[in-house]
Amino acid sequence: MGAALALAERTRGSTAPNPNVGCVIVRDGRVVGRGWTQPGGRPHAEAMALAAAGPRTRGATAYVTLEPCAHVSARGPACADLLVAAHVARVVVAIGDPDPRTDGSGIARLRAAGITVDTGVRAGEAAHGMAGFLTRQRLGRPFVTLKLATSLDGRIALPDGSSRWITGPEARAHTHLERSRHEAILVGRGTWQADAPRLDVRLAGLEARSPQRVILSSHPHPSALRASSLSRWEREGAPQARKGEGESDVLWIDSPHAIAALPADHLFVEGGAATAAAFLRADLVDRLLLYRAPIVIGAGTSAIGDLGIADLGTAHGRWRLHDARQLGTDRLEVYERTPCLPA
Amino acid sequence: MGAALALAERTRGSTAPNPNVGCVIVRDGRVVGRGWTQPGGRPHAEAMALAAAGPRTRGATAYVTLEPCAHVSARGPACADLLVAAHVARVVVAIGDPDPRTDGSGIARLRAAGITVDTGVRAGEAAHGMAGFLTRQRLGRPFVTLKLATSLDGRIALPDGSSRWITGPEARAHTHLERSRHEAILVGRGTWQADAPRLDVRLAGLEARSPQRVILSSHPHPSALRASSLSRWEREGAPQARKGEGESDVLWIDSPHAIAALPADHLFVEGGAATAAAFLRADLVDRLLLYRAPIVIGAGTSAIGDLGIADLGTAHGRWRLHDARQLGTDRLEVYERTPCLPA
Repeated sequence: MGAALALAERTRGSTAPNPNVGCVIVRDGRVVGRGWTQPGGRPHAEAMALAAAGPRTRGATAYVTLEPCAHVSARGPACADLLVAAHVARVVVAIGDPDPRTDGSGIARLRAAGITVDTGVRAGEAAHGMAGFLTRQRLGRPFVTLKLATSLDGRIALPDGSSRWITGPEARAHTHLERSRHEAILVGRGTWQADAPRLDVRLAGLEARSPQRVILSSHPHPSALRASSLSRWEREGAPQARKGEGESDVLWIDSPHAIAALPADHLFVEGGAATAAAFLRADLVDRLLLYRAPIVIGAGTSAIGDLGIADLGTAHGRWRLHDARQLGTDRLEVYERTPCLPA
Repeated sequence: MGAALALAERTRGSTAPNPNVGCVIVRDGRVVGRGWTQPGGRPHAEAMALAAAGPRTRGATAYVTLEPCAHVSARGPACADLLVAAHVARVVVAIGDPDPRTDGSGIARLRAAGITVDTGVRAGEAAHGMAGFLTRQRLGRPFVTLKLATSLDGRIALPDGSSRWITGPEARAHTHLERSRHEAILVGRGTWQADAPRLDVRLAGLEARSPQRVILSSHPHPSALRASSLSRWEREGAPQARKGEGESDVLWIDSPHAIAALPADHLFVEGGAATAAAFLRADLVDRLLLYRAPIVIGAGTSAIGDLGIADLGTAHGRWRLHDARQLGTDRLEVYERTPCLPA
């Protein structure tokens, strides 16, 4: 299951509206097939792993991070049916699929065919890795990561607005890696107009994983797409126009709540301070990526605008340190909301 | 030497103007005496360890974190003479004593008496542990620690000034422990008047280690002591009035540079933002203690005022992470200036 979880990470942020699933097939103690949800959401992980294993699936064990789907789609058959047809002996599942078209029926179909099914194996890690999909399923919006790059004293720019660079090349490269794990990236109009950020992925081999660019503005660009004009996004629907390079491919939204309509299960919010505050005020931040350089700036731009907190007590208990690492001279801390995923 | 270094830590911040030294005496593989500089600076570590060892010093090895002193004082004999008289066979020294009254002559006197002397053992750690004494010797001022307690976004208070509490009880207790390791503690007049902080040590058994309180103000309290009226502080001089409880025991200074005249080798600066900025602008901060609570505040008071930094490039390369630890839900990071000690 550990290997399947690692495979699932490969396409996190590029499989929406499908979950990023990993699958490993083992027979006689040897791995005979590996699969992970492909960019765009198809093929599914099980289909890829079964195809790789070929005739060696008979009597094998399949480890899969999410309950195999039970529904036939125009884009492919149900994975539960594929596993039955492949004559696997056992399927080990991390978590169930909350999608109402599956939601237990995938496991039931496997068991009805005489396949042994174990569930709940490394469920916490699987839920964490598929937080985007699960947040969309449960809350109808993407999983939102807010990224901040600050000095030790919480500044994101000098008084004159200059911010190049606070963090070093390792931290900036890591930011690009994180961008590649999100279907959409968002900045406020002020940042968009002042810094003209490209918001793309500039890492060799990952250029095609640049996310859809989104601008938050209470006065959106009149010639651009409006979130309110996007039809409610349906699972298994074709991804909408994205990955474009031109200005015309930028989406404008007028409220943090409009992110529900974005064709994305993972949204990366890069600032500035007013935008960060708008998402925090709306309680729409699930994860905080805090890149901190070992510098002191003093007067300058603060990372986060007014949140309207009137009592320090209410600020406590909302964030939990999930991970921390050194990136060159900088420090990355990852905080997650408590609880990270809604029950 | 490790044991001697640990003993030396016991009275860091309460031996000025003397260094905080540790000494361990070993004979036949057994520790026969341990000593550390006592509060106020006397007895010295070697005198205490030799007294504890009694007749067992003959042929023993003494481990001492600083070169034994070579000068007789009204308050006690020279430690080099004590070691010779005790007939130790060998002395292991971490670092030399830069005090011009010793500065190599302690080691020379030992060698002249036929004692084997090894030097430079764990010298870096010893210099780190005696940074207060060494800073006073080399720069004529105390070693300065700036303490900040902030939210993740670098705030030290809400817009209305309330700051109780940002950090939790473990972090606040640690701050009191740090206070006990400093002869003097300083806040700005604004903090002094707004918060009326006690600035004492409220840890069981360490109450007597409360530091001398000092207020920085460009308009000092007219009835209080002025730093400019303090005579230049001499090594081995009697500690000046301190540890007092009343308002009259508070020292007022009118500039960060006036700290040179304080009867302290370790100064703990607790804020607020203008005071932190004044010390940073004057390049008088050697160590940064950053307590960070996992909360986001948004609009509020920033930790550090204007530093006049016009170019981000100049902000880099000044601080190095020395230590980090978890204190309850909060995180403590210790940064040191690079280089930490002047050459």
